[in-house]
Amino acid sequence: MRGAVIHAPGDVRFETLDDPRILKPTDAIIRTAVTCVCGSDLWPYRGAEPTDGAHPMGHEYVGFVEEVGSEVTAVRPGQFVVGSFATSCNACANCRNGYQSGCLHREFMSTCQAEYVRIPNAQGTLVATDGVPDEAFWPGLLAVSDVLGTGWWAADAAEVRPGATAVVVGDGAVGLCGVIAAKEFGAERIIAMSRHEPRQKLALEFGATDIVTERGDEGVARLKELTGGICVDSVLECVGTAQAMQQALRSARPGGNVGFVGVPHEVALDGQELFFSHVGLRGGPAPVRRYLPDLVARVLSRSIDPGKVFDLTLPLEQVAEGYRAMDERRAIKTLLKP
Amino acid sequence: MRGAVIHAPGDVRFETLDDPRILKPTDAIIRTAVTCVCGSDLWPYRGAEPTDGAHPMGHEYVGFVEEVGSEVTAVRPGQFVVGSFATSCNACANCRNGYQSGCLHREFMSTCQAEYVRIPNAQGTLVATDGVPDEAFWPGLLAVSDVLGTGWWAADAAEVRPGATAVVVGDGAVGLCGVIAAKEFGAERIIAMSRHEPRQKLALEFGATDIVTERGDEGVARLKELTGGICVDSVLECVGTAQAMQQALRSARPGGNVGFVGVPHEVALDGQELFFSHVGLRGGPAPVRRYLPDLVARVLSRSIDPGKVFDLTLPLEQVAEGYRAMDERRAIKTLLKP
Repeated sequence: MRGAVIHAPGDVRFETLDDPRILKPTDAIIRTAVTCVCGSDLWPYRGAEPTDGAHPMGHEYVGFVEEVGSEVTAVRPGQFVVGSFATSCNACANCRNGYQSGCLHREFMSTCQAEYVRIPNAQGTLVATDGVPDEAFWPGLLAVSDVLGTGWWAADAAEVRPGATAVVVGDGAVGLCGVIAAKEFGAERIIAMSRHEPRQKLALEFGATDIVTERGDEGVARLKELTGGICVDSVLECVGTAQAMQQALRSARPGGNVGFVGVPHEVALDGQELFFSHVGLRGGPAPVRRYLPDLVARVLSRSIDPGKVFDLTLPLEQVAEGYRAMDERRAIKTLLKP
Repeated sequence: MRGAVIHAPGDVRFETLDDPRILKPTDAIIRTAVTCVCGSDLWPYRGAEPTDGAHPMGHEYVGFVEEVGSEVTAVRPGQFVVGSFATSCNACANCRNGYQSGCLHREFMSTCQAEYVRIPNAQGTLVATDGVPDEAFWPGLLAVSDVLGTGWWAADAAEVRPGATAVVVGDGAVGLCGVIAAKEFGAERIIAMSRHEPRQKLALEFGATDIVTERGDEGVARLKELTGGICVDSVLECVGTAQAMQQALRSARPGGNVGFVGVPHEVALDGQELFFSHVGLRGGPAPVRRYLPDLVARVLSRSIDPGKVFDLTLPLEQVAEGYRAMDERRAIKTLLKP
């Protein structure tokens, strides 16, 4: 089969690779329907994370089950399945507590920009749709497997309540999906922090009520103006830089909450500032599996359309161009078709 | 009148001071019934916080209203009142959200180890009891104004739920009151981290089910043994050092919560460790006012007895000895009688 391999920062190639095989009785092999490039793939692509030797890339997928291991009974060959970037047994204590992305058997996906993919923990990870959905739904279901699941988790971790004011820091695909989630959670006012016109437009389409273009302390000052001086109930931090995290923490009112879902890069939090802020904080890799059946149903019933975050579609063999377009901010998110 | 003044680390004196006066129409003056020394008073006493010039000390009090400003109608002279170390209007947006210790008009108390005390924001801060309670209740009501209110907030911020497993880091008066709170919140298993026999005994009396004497990573390993390998639902961090905070964060299971109420001293949190822990975190000065009517009622109905944390009672004029006894860990908490 063929798939994407990163060799060094800026150097992603489409190459012939070994076909994946069942390695454990809990594995499944899927044929990729569609896959994509994630904002977090840009960390190694930009050299902000080390690349130790060439390795495959990609952790988002929907596809058709090809083969299952002997212990996998929840899905069967031929079915269309949605999963998560973090695989989970869905049976251990952490999974039962709703933190499937903290599963005691967790393996992160990392080989999905390819024609075939091995899925560990397939029994607890994959959810089959009822029949093969129309191809028009594939981008939305693909978004569920990571960016929508992550935006949803941001809203959940930020404890967005009906009637609340929420702010979304970050206008990438996760942030935009965070706007969808905040709206579905019932937020009455949703403020998107964005300077990029196409992203502002999509944020408004997804339910944002206000756009704030200022950043850092100026952005916080603007939020205070918009909220009678006390800042917002819920902040969805969807970037992961120190600047974004500081802005997020200062954007929440006393007793408010920050859900942080951008993987933190060189972020240190000052204990005393956090203390006197009274802000609640929760983050981590999204427990997408917890939300999966609900989110699949919302996409298939057309109540949400997170597939709109894909504004560039390329054949999988042009994966390198997919990275370039996102790196240069020509695309919000690149869909790849095998 | 007379009261305590700190001149330098280790140097607390009982001196003649100006009588407090009504400075604003929202003030009240109380005659102190009992006051006490707080664990946090030991930070400047030990030189861990700077003492810029001599100043009065103390932020815990119950007493009799002597005089009220023209805008204070909620209490009247002669009444016995309980308050909080953080004064609050109980009317602004932050107060209405339940974060009275983040009141837009907040003033922290700092002159309470004295015969008379001026209480700013008296209207929103003071709660009068129904008649003057028997003197036997005064220590318990005094505890409500800070250490019980803070332990209660630790349990609330750590989201202790009925049936949960909770661990309390810190065996000072706040930690011991955290045990009371965890029990009242319905925790089924309450693990107190303590190496000091009199404190262990009081923790067990207050409802602790287990005592763990190990600290740091050894303490965390012991908690894992006690909880089937996943650690605990709720952690009450009642110290404020970097070591205690790290231990607290590592003691919570994925999806668990840390309530941190010890004022952090040189605590920096690693964003990536917090991210991958999936632990929720909330801290700050306790919004005691939110809990005040409930806690006063629990003390007066004898359903809880937080006054037991006072294991040394001295006349106010011996305040210096009260500090020394706590500094040398001869006393958990010193009650002072004017």
